[in-house]
Amino acid sequence: MGWSLKRWLIGRPLKSAELGEQKLIKTKALAILSSDALSSVAYGPEQILLTFAAVGPAAFWFSVPIGVGVLVLLTALILSYRQIIFAYPHGGGAYVVSKENLGLYPGLVAGGSLLVDYILTVAVSVSAGTDAVTSAFPVLHAYSVPIAVAFVVFITVLNLRGVTESASILAYPVYLFVAALFVLIVAGLVREFSGVALPEPQTPIGTPVAGVGLFLLLRAFASGSSALTGVEAISNAIPNFKAPATNNAAKTLLAMGLLLAVLFAGIVYFVYDFGVVPDPEVTVLSQLAETTFGRGWMYYFIQATTALILILAANTGYSAFPLLAVNLANDRFIPRMFTVRGDRLGYSNGILFLGLLSILLIIAFQGQTEHLIPLYAVGVFIPFTLSQTGMIVKWIREKPRGWQGKLAVNAVGAFICLTVTGIFFVTKFGRVWPVLVFLPLLIYGFHRIRKHYNAVGEQLRVVPGEPALRIEGNVVILPVGGITRVVENSVNYARTLHADQIIAVHVPFERGEEERFERKWREWMPEIRLVTLYSPYRSILQPLSKFIDTVSRKAEESNYTVTVVIPQFFPRKGWHHFLHNQTSLLLRTRLLYRQDVVVTTVPYHLKK
Amino acid sequence: MGWSLKRWLIGRPLKSAELGEQKLIKTKALAILSSDALSSVAYGPEQILLTFAAVGPAAFWFSVPIGVGVLVLLTALILSYRQIIFAYPHGGGAYVVSKENLGLYPGLVAGGSLLVDYILTVAVSVSAGTDAVTSAFPVLHAYSVPIAVAFVVFITVLNLRGVTESASILAYPVYLFVAALFVLIVAGLVREFSGVALPEPQTPIGTPVAGVGLFLLLRAFASGSSALTGVEAISNAIPNFKAPATNNAAKTLLAMGLLLAVLFAGIVYFVYDFGVVPDPEVTVLSQLAETTFGRGWMYYFIQATTALILILAANTGYSAFPLLAVNLANDRFIPRMFTVRGDRLGYSNGILFLGLLSILLIIAFQGQTEHLIPLYAVGVFIPFTLSQTGMIVKWIREKPRGWQGKLAVNAVGAFICLTVTGIFFVTKFGRVWPVLVFLPLLIYGFHRIRKHYNAVGEQLRVVPGEPALRIEGNVVILPVGGITRVVENSVNYARTLHADQIIAVHVPFERGEEERFERKWREWMPEIRLVTLYSPYRSILQPLSKFIDTVSRKAEESNYTVTVVIPQFFPRKGWHHFLHNQTSLLLRTRLLYRQDVVVTTVPYHLKK
Repeated sequence: MGWSLKRWLIGRPLKSAELGEQKLIKTKALAILSSDALSSVAYGPEQILLTFAAVGPAAFWFSVPIGVGVLVLLTALILSYRQIIFAYPHGGGAYVVSKENLGLYPGLVAGGSLLVDYILTVAVSVSAGTDAVTSAFPVLHAYSVPIAVAFVVFITVLNLRGVTESASILAYPVYLFVAALFVLIVAGLVREFSGVALPEPQTPIGTPVAGVGLFLLLRAFASGSSALTGVEAISNAIPNFKAPATNNAAKTLLAMGLLLAVLFAGIVYFVYDFGVVPDPEVTVLSQLAETTFGRGWMYYFIQATTALILILAANTGYSAFPLLAVNLANDRFIPRMFTVRGDRLGYSNGILFLGLLSILLIIAFQGQTEHLIPLYAVGVFIPFTLSQTGMIVKWIREKPRGWQGKLAVNAVGAFICLTVTGIFFVTKFGRVWPVLVFLPLLIYGFHRIRKHYNAVGEQLRVVPGEPALRIEGNVVILPVGGITRVVENSVNYARTLHADQIIAVHVPFERGEEERFERKWREWMPEIRLVTLYSPYRSILQPLSKFIDTVSRKAEESNYTVTVVIPQFFPRKGWHHFLHNQTSLLLRTRLLYRQDVVVTTVPYHLKK
Repeated sequence: MGWSLKRWLIGRPLKSAELGEQKLIKTKALAILSSDALSSVAYGPEQILLTFAAVGPAAFWFSVPIGVGVLVLLTALILSYRQIIFAYPHGGGAYVVSKENLGLYPGLVAGGSLLVDYILTVAVSVSAGTDAVTSAFPVLHAYSVPIAVAFVVFITVLNLRGVTESASILAYPVYLFVAALFVLIVAGLVREFSGVALPEPQTPIGTPVAGVGLFLLLRAFASGSSALTGVEAISNAIPNFKAPATNNAAKTLLAMGLLLAVLFAGIVYFVYDFGVVPDPEVTVLSQLAETTFGRGWMYYFIQATTALILILAANTGYSAFPLLAVNLANDRFIPRMFTVRGDRLGYSNGILFLGLLSILLIIAFQGQTEHLIPLYAVGVFIPFTLSQTGMIVKWIREKPRGWQGKLAVNAVGAFICLTVTGIFFVTKFGRVWPVLVFLPLLIYGFHRIRKHYNAVGEQLRVVPGEPALRIEGNVVILPVGGITRVVENSVNYARTLHADQIIAVHVPFERGEEERFERKWREWMPEIRLVTLYSPYRSILQPLSKFIDTVSRKAEESNYTVTVVIPQFFPRKGWHHFLHNQTSLLLRTRLLYRQDVVVTTVPYHLKK
């Protein structure tokens, strides 16, 4: 039943040979790879306003200059990533760039933060998407956690089915979102210049406000920079572009930067201009749309495309996480299971792991993942900084033609990213400190896992000329519970093993039982030696494993193997297992884990 | 760690030989075996009042005549059970008496209802005991579920440790409770005759009240009879009495009947007389104690002994349930695991099962187990009726001297019990209908389990002259994942089995891999035949079990066994298991369950 449910959810298994890759044209690539970055405008401006809300609405005008600062940062990032595209045409993830140029540990820091970050991408984007839905339909507000979880489950199933980034259908919502926001901005401009009265007059730009100091401004800037998460996506995905891949990728990156700049600037400005005030139950973008269009179809259209693009942004986490996990697993830093392709050729373990953890996050934070945005942003800027720094090292080491200019661009990028990271730690330490805990833990974990895999590899390696195990003979031990056909069966099987000795062992719980059983056995199978081990504490496992220990020690001296033959009967129906004690199972598990004996299970399948 | 926690909780294991039995003297027996019956007075009178509460306080005087009716019922029960004591000196549980005299199915009905009833005993008594505590300390009212669960856990652990019924310490609370209630009744009498003004005048006995009809009266009578649950305990436990056991048991039964009658009558009368009104947060008994003594030490003493005796009443469930379970398990009606004695010689599976289910009940009903009292009571009166009827049959069949008189007593008992059961079904169908669902289900379950055990017994029986399994030879199949020491080890082991054929099987996921591996294998172990099974769907289990199937079919024709030798390596630490796929484990489980092949696991314990 579980099987057919799985089939229905994720579809029939695919052959390895069916693994193909579609190349992306620029317009499709722009849509698919930008959803994470573009969707950030749905929560980035709100984050800036929230910072100033502590001081009061008079301070909201500061969001405009802060927005300008974010645009400068965006420009620096786009220029830096453009260079990474040309330098790493096979995809320059922060993990690869940092590992190659800065060394193993910076690489692991980048990889570790990204790994955690993709989980946060899913949690934050889906929660924000849910907020867009509940802003439009306030009655759903009470159910935002189950709605968000349902979205995650839906995306997880889609990805297990193997909806790859290349599915064209995913491109439409992005363009619809961009179009909707353009209409919103144009409507704002029209209103602005037609001189219609504003709903609420704003404090003019430049008004001094008590309580707004450097700290608050830096804090607001850091908040605003959360709108830039996701700009690295294009540089990681160059191999997916149509030839000439690098040129196309670079052009797509520029287009994305432009779109992002326009949307971000427009939203920040009109949110200020229309006097929108943050509200825990209605997003700023929703308020802006409502102020502009009223609760008409255009409003619902904006909310719908916002929700969709945020969910798509979560989907980019599903493309990136499993690939990064494969890289880390191939380098033996995380469990090998992340390299296994599932029935539909996706890296299903990574997909499931990502889905599960983001659901846990959503539940733990009750869908209030805006608390996670600073953590998420800092988790992006750390690898940003590392990969820009890696590029600096690369230019200095390789010194290609015109390297000084390139060096300068990446140096500015690295410096700005480092500064933003620093600002996060200084102004939002209360939100971002967890990164200082989990990053070292993660890297310690990576290290331990790699160490284990290396040790295992060494132990499993066959060294020519070194004999593995010299076996001179075999002693068979046969635990018997009574005189039954199951036991008869196992004795007959044990006889075919040509062992040097077969010892049947019985563990009676009562004193009189010992002699009685020995007599019956002598009558039944006189040729097999029987040992009875009276167990005053009514445990079968203990006396038996003690006996096996004794036999093993003696056998080891003369290079004999000890084989324990365990008779086990299998009832015909699942529920029947409850009716029988699981001694065989316990015995097998304990012997295999604790002792160096071979365990042979002779099944006896019941017919009725 | 789990191990030492277990040791600390339940103590060191005991040898079977340490199983001893203390015989009970009358006074101790009275205390220990009556706690269930006597404790019922803590909730029985309240149940009567609650019935009339629907009509209004004017109807409360009816509780007095209803109380008289319950006393008549009590007399009939005591006399009937006195006869059972003499007829079944080895303990006449309803299951035994009904099975012997009425046949298998009536026996199972009695056994099944008792089995469920003991679970209800624990849940109802513990909840009522918790009510006594929270009535005294209202601040604890919000925590009644965790408190009740903690009580159940405590009693469960005590019983796992092996606190048997004979522990003298359990006798004191019962006598203290009886003494406390006697003081309460005497204080009431003093007050009554000294003419102190009553707190609230009651409607005089005999006042006609609109709305009180036969239905309500019968319903109140049924409710009141819930105070009689537990009177069967003495007749079940005769072997525990000092000689002459039957006489002593009979005398103890009479003494218990008298005590129960006095306490019940006293409480019912003074609850009426003092105008106590049922309150969901304070028990009637607590109100009575408070009205009589104020919130002084005597009040807290009564509450404390009430709580204690109710918890002790739960404890009688822990003595009775595992013993009944052993009887049913020996007759093969429930899983055999209930016959296994634990480390401390108690039937620990029964104890754990009882504890777990009563905790589930308490949580499911949020500690409001008064809803369960009717179900509990009907579950007692069904076996009462059946065992009395069994006695009738016994007298008619055996016709001992003076059988007519004995017959008459049991006939009256059976008739009254049947009537009470009927009243329950007519007046409280909404509460007792579940018995009509779970009893048939239970009995069907009993039947299926017995059928399975009989079928298994037949299949396992060794029939002399009928050979079990003729084995002419052995084919060894060896799944190999690569060229490692683990595989080398297993091959060497397989060689000692003197099999007629050893086939190594490799399952590559990629086309090129096939040839490459075959070449490497030929170089490494040319003498072992290798079969490669290319798996386009990346499943190891599927192609392998298909191959094993094919080999098995051929082997079966010529009476060859197929042995699958599975190499498995065991890492040194538990968490390392996450780093390796569990193919060996999956393979073993699947092969053993689905196919008729012997599975041999060759462990390879990693040193690092």
